[in-house]
Amino acid sequence: MLRRVRANIRHVKAADRDGPVALFDSGVGGLTVLHECLVQIPHEDFLYLGDTARFPYGDRSLDELRAFAQELAAILVDEGAKMLVVACNSATSAAMPKLRQDLAGVVDVISVVEPESRLAADTTRNRRIGLLATPATVGSGAYQRALRKSAPGCEVTAVGTRELAPLIQREGDWWDQELVDCVDRVCEPLADAKVDTVILGCTHYPLIRPMLQRRLGRRVRLVSSGEAIAETVHDALRKDGLDRDDEDRRGDYSFICTGDPGEFHRVGGRFLQMPLGQVRQVEVRDPREVHA
Amino acid sequence: MLRRVRANIRHVKAADRDGPVALFDSGVGGLTVLHECLVQIPHEDFLYLGDTARFPYGDRSLDELRAFAQELAAILVDEGAKMLVVACNSATSAAMPKLRQDLAGVVDVISVVEPESRLAADTTRNRRIGLLATPATVGSGAYQRALRKSAPGCEVTAVGTRELAPLIQREGDWWDQELVDCVDRVCEPLADAKVDTVILGCTHYPLIRPMLQRRLGRRVRLVSSGEAIAETVHDALRKDGLDRDDEDRRGDYSFICTGDPGEFHRVGGRFLQMPLGQVRQVEVRDPREVHA
Repeated sequence: MLRRVRANIRHVKAADRDGPVALFDSGVGGLTVLHECLVQIPHEDFLYLGDTARFPYGDRSLDELRAFAQELAAILVDEGAKMLVVACNSATSAAMPKLRQDLAGVVDVISVVEPESRLAADTTRNRRIGLLATPATVGSGAYQRALRKSAPGCEVTAVGTRELAPLIQREGDWWDQELVDCVDRVCEPLADAKVDTVILGCTHYPLIRPMLQRRLGRRVRLVSSGEAIAETVHDALRKDGLDRDDEDRRGDYSFICTGDPGEFHRVGGRFLQMPLGQVRQVEVRDPREVHA
Repeated sequence: MLRRVRANIRHVKAADRDGPVALFDSGVGGLTVLHECLVQIPHEDFLYLGDTARFPYGDRSLDELRAFAQELAAILVDEGAKMLVVACNSATSAAMPKLRQDLAGVVDVISVVEPESRLAADTTRNRRIGLLATPATVGSGAYQRALRKSAPGCEVTAVGTRELAPLIQREGDWWDQELVDCVDRVCEPLADAKVDTVILGCTHYPLIRPMLQRRLGRRVRLVSSGEAIAETVHDALRKDGLDRDDEDRRGDYSFICTGDPGEFHRVGGRFLQMPLGQVRQVEVRDPREVHA
């Protein structure tokens, strides 16, 4: 299957300036990254693919995640993507830098981790950086490695939490006391370590940025994947000569998901904080077929 | 009735450092101001009063609005408020500076308009400032007067819109195409005037800040009542010697409304973006009694 995907990728035309910047994620979390891109780079077009049929990625094997990433990338390249953003921590840990190598000469691939780490390094004054993420992301050591490169000598305090993302993903009155208590718990070690910069290492966390800011104090700078990636995408487009010239242009954006489009629409609005419009569905392989 | 309220105010003790900062508004819109205060000044206590029973204030007479403001201020002073924030454009236009004079020696009164105008004056580089507000607020000329003082010689482009606040107040999937189209329409004259700073002159507008930013471009700085007031409150507390010393303190916040507490709770969460907890109800006069 991997071979087929790569063959597929090889046959597409080279990146076209008029194509969309494409993002993929396991679900709706990456919409916070798209949100920042829509605010920061309004003149570009965007295409978002949420692999909701196989969500969540948390307990998938590395092989599975690599195959998923290849498959989603092939779909997006086929849709004419001029740049690819892996807006998903699990997929990034598993599939990068391999995906970048496979797509060399086809499209540039930007993923989470590196952009936030660079932005955090540029931001910290006291050289104490916090990381808030899922236990899997913390455990992968990806942020810690990136920070050793971009912010050598900085002290990193990593807090892994399994509870926070599901509490945010709940529908209805989700900003309740249970969430505040969880925010309190995860912020305590960061406050104790006197960090002045905290990387929000999960795409769900921008939705609780005000709660985190209230708990950590306004002197602490929160760095999200979205803002870091939007900046990186903009720079990369210019570097590659793929940016739209007309900054007064009004870009479009559209959505594909692998699960139920209605559910994507209902849950996604809160993450995007803009209208979702039409959501198309594409079929992907059943995880059991990946190893077949 | 006004006489009674003033008598009431005169008998309360002087502002106490341990009291809450109190805000009032005609409804839930002022919760975006409280939101910013909770983020910027987390170590203080806050009390919010929403006059939901008499919402909206848009078509009230100046006499009515003055009487309402007096009545709400008396309730909050009675609750031990150490500072009063009028988080409501209509009440500010009608009741200020009279309310400030009446409460001199009791509590400081901070209202919208002046803080945002000062912040906008500090922010603009090209000396072109936009104002987005309801037609009543634009028509009152309050922001224009404040800007003539804080930003003399600046060109002000004011856009009045009746539709925007109700579109934001809708429950359910409120970030729809109708809202985007409305944002497009109201932003057009601001973009044409090449303003580099826009005052969000209605407490509902911070909820669509990303849509406005996307439409106006990231070079335009949006100034909201909330951020401007939070800064002003913090400075005023320090100036008055009423700020809590301990910046590591975790403040409380609570709510009173004059209408149905259940509805306040349901609608308010989206404006506060934090849990509302308990909401108490207080009785206020029927508008028909005010003139009796």
